[in-house]
Amino acid sequence: MKDINGGISAVAGVKVSGIKQGKNGLAVIRAEGSAAGVFTRNKIIAPSLVITQQHLEDGKLAAVIANSGCANSFTGTPGLKDAKEMAKLTAAKLGIEVNSVGVASTGVIGKRLDMDLIRSQFDELIRKSNEDHKGSTAAAKAIMTTDTFPKEAAVELSDGTHIAGIAKGSGMIAPDMCTMLSFLYTDAKLDAGTLKDCLQKAVDKSFNMVVVDGDNSTNDMVLITATGRSGPTDLDEFKQGLEHVCITLARLIAKDGEGATHLIEARVNGGLNDHDAALAARTIVRSPLVKSAVFGKDPNWGRVVAAVGYSGAQVDQERISLAFADKSSQVKLVENGQIMETLDADLKEIMGSEEIFIIVDLDLGSGSATAWGCDLTYDYVRINAEYTT
Amino acid sequence: MKDINGGISAVAGVKVSGIKQGKNGLAVIRAEGSAAGVFTRNKIIAPSLVITQQHLEDGKLAAVIANSGCANSFTGTPGLKDAKEMAKLTAAKLGIEVNSVGVASTGVIGKRLDMDLIRSQFDELIRKSNEDHKGSTAAAKAIMTTDTFPKEAAVELSDGTHIAGIAKGSGMIAPDMCTMLSFLYTDAKLDAGTLKDCLQKAVDKSFNMVVVDGDNSTNDMVLITATGRSGPTDLDEFKQGLEHVCITLARLIAKDGEGATHLIEARVNGGLNDHDAALAARTIVRSPLVKSAVFGKDPNWGRVVAAVGYSGAQVDQERISLAFADKSSQVKLVENGQIMETLDADLKEIMGSEEIFIIVDLDLGSGSATAWGCDLTYDYVRINAEYTT
Repeated sequence: MKDINGGISAVAGVKVSGIKQGKNGLAVIRAEGSAAGVFTRNKIIAPSLVITQQHLEDGKLAAVIANSGCANSFTGTPGLKDAKEMAKLTAAKLGIEVNSVGVASTGVIGKRLDMDLIRSQFDELIRKSNEDHKGSTAAAKAIMTTDTFPKEAAVELSDGTHIAGIAKGSGMIAPDMCTMLSFLYTDAKLDAGTLKDCLQKAVDKSFNMVVVDGDNSTNDMVLITATGRSGPTDLDEFKQGLEHVCITLARLIAKDGEGATHLIEARVNGGLNDHDAALAARTIVRSPLVKSAVFGKDPNWGRVVAAVGYSGAQVDQERISLAFADKSSQVKLVENGQIMETLDADLKEIMGSEEIFIIVDLDLGSGSATAWGCDLTYDYVRINAEYTT
Repeated sequence: MKDINGGISAVAGVKVSGIKQGKNGLAVIRAEGSAAGVFTRNKIIAPSLVITQQHLEDGKLAAVIANSGCANSFTGTPGLKDAKEMAKLTAAKLGIEVNSVGVASTGVIGKRLDMDLIRSQFDELIRKSNEDHKGSTAAAKAIMTTDTFPKEAAVELSDGTHIAGIAKGSGMIAPDMCTMLSFLYTDAKLDAGTLKDCLQKAVDKSFNMVVVDGDNSTNDMVLITATGRSGPTDLDEFKQGLEHVCITLARLIAKDGEGATHLIEARVNGGLNDHDAALAARTIVRSPLVKSAVFGKDPNWGRVVAAVGYSGAQVDQERISLAFADKSSQVKLVENGQIMETLDADLKEIMGSEEIFIIVDLDLGSGSATAWGCDLTYDYVRINAEYTT
C-alpha cells in the first residue's frame, strides 16, 4: 500500500467536479457501483440523510450531489421536497435513476435551500465535468464551510486497487462524525454488505475519534462506492487501506478544527478494553481545559489526568503513566502514578510543535485507542460568534 | 422563606474566617453538628476527599478547613499525609477531634501543598476568627481561584430557621460539581441521614445542572452541617430553602464562568421524563457552538436544536417548540417543528441581555429541568491558556 496523489479522481470509474460561489458550493460525483453509508446519530436528521438512506436500500449508488452553505436541516416537508428535487435534478442531468443518487448538504441549520442557485450551479458543473475528469480537489473545495483547506487522501494497494476519499468538517465535529461529510471511492469489486462492514469499522477508528468541539450535527454522513473496475482484491489489505484513508482524512479534519493552531493526538494504551481506551482518548481531546492549555503551550498534564478520571474509563491512579511528545521527542510526566522530574526546556520544545501527542498508559489491560482533536483558540470563539444564522 | 444577608455567618452556631494571600487562600469554618457531603464522580479523587469522606462516616463535623491555590490532587501518599496534617492542625488549634474536621482544596493539580504557608496562614486566621464572627464573605473570597466575585446565599424560613452557603467554582465546572466547593450551614435540628437525602436532591437540581466547560475536577465537594441551634423545622420548607440556596449559588457560579459575559439558563419542558429533560438542558448549556453564538449575540437557534438532537433525550422534530427570552420579553422561534417569523429587533434586544433564557418544549411528556451555563468567550481561552501548571 502506498499513498498517491489525485484524491478520488485516482479511482477508476469516478468522474467528479465542483464549484464554489462565495459560501455556496456544489459538487457532483459520478461513480456507479455497490455502496454503503454511515450517518450521524443525532436524533434530528436533515432531509438529505432521509433521502440518501432510502436510496442506499438497494446497496447501490450512481452519483452523489453535495452542496455547502445551507444544511437544509429542520426545514420540514418543504425541505424534504428540496432534497428530493436535488436527487431528481442530478438523475435528469446525468441520465440515471433518481434512487441511485446520494444527497448531502452542509451549512446553516433552519434555512431552506436556494433551489434556483443550485440549478444554475448544476448547469455550470455539468459543463465542467465533461471537460475535467480530475475534479477531486474542486469537489473537496466545493463542500468546504469553515474549513481552511480541501481534504483529500488516496492509496494504491499492492495489486493496483485504489481507495480514495474527500472530506469536509471543521467545527461541530464530534464522535458520530458531525458536520462532517466524506465521500469515499474504490475501484475494488466488493458487495454492499462487505463495504458497509468495512466502512463502519474504519469510521469507528477514524472519523468517530475526532473531536473538535464535541457538538454533533444533524447532517453528516460518510458514503463509500465501489466501482469494481479493478476487480476483486485482498480483503485484509483493503480494510487496512480504507482505515488508512479514513484516518488521514480524520487527522486533516482535526488539524483544520476551527481556529486550530495545534493538532492533538491522544493515544491511550493499557485500557481495560478498547471501549474504555476510546472513552479516555476522546475525553482528553474533548476537554476545553486540555485544549486551551495546548493553545497556551502549557504542559498542564493535571488536566489530562482529570479528563481520564471523568471519562468513564476504568482508572487506577497508581497505575497511570503519561507522556507528552512530538514527532521527534517524548517527555514522561507520570510513571505508575508517580510525578516525574522533567526538564522545562524539553517540554517547551514539544508544546511548541504543530502536532502534539498525549500518551497515556492505564496499565489495566490490552485496550488501546487513538483520538484526534485540536486546541481551543481565540479564533474558534471568533469564528463561531460571528458565523451567523 | 426570604432571602437575607450575612451568608453563612447568619446561621446560629457558625464561626467563620478566611484570608487570601495572592493565589493562596485559607478558610476555617467552625460549626458543630450533624453533617453530610456530596462529592465529585471523577474516578481520580484528591486526598482531601478521602479524608473528608472518612471523617463524615459518623455523620458529624465540627469544622471545615479549605485552601485555594493548590488542589493537592494526584500527589500520592505524601499528599494524603498533607491533607491529614491539615485536619490535625485544625483540630489542635480549635481543640476538637481530628475526625470531626472536613478538608477541602482547590487549585492546580499535581503539586504538593505548601504546609509551611498553610501553618502561617492558620495562625493569622485563628486571630481573625476570635475578633470577627461574621467572616462569611472573607471565607467566600479565600476559596476563590479564577472566580471574580465571592459567592454567598442565605435564607430565613418562616419559623426563623436559617440556611446559608458559600461556594466557589468558575472553570472546570460540569455536572458532578467539578472544581467546585460549597459549604452549606443551617441552624435547623436534623439528623445526618435526612441532611444527606435533602442535600443530594438539592445538588441534583442546582450544582449538577451547571456547566461552564464540561470538565470535571478531582477535588470537589458540597458539605452541609446542621448546628441544631434553632431546633426542629418543617422538612418541606427546609428542602425548598436548601434548594433555593443551592440554585442561587449555582447561578452565581454559571454567571462567573471563566470569561463569561452572559448567563445562559436552559429550561426544558415536555420531556419524556425529568431525566430526559435534564439531558437536553445540560447539553444545550454545554454546547461550545451555542455558547459562542450567545457570546456573539447571535440567535443561532439551529445549534440549540442540534444539541437537543444529540443530547440522548427522546426528541420528535415535529413537536419541538423553542423560544429565546430575557427577563422582560420572549420570542418564539419554533413552534411544533415549524419555524416562526420573528422580528430581528426583538431578538437583538434579548441577545444583548446579561441573562438569556433558552426555552424548549419537547411536547412528549411532563419531564422538566433547568440548567445553567455561560457563553464561551475570548477571555475563557485567555484564562485557561495562561493558568499555568
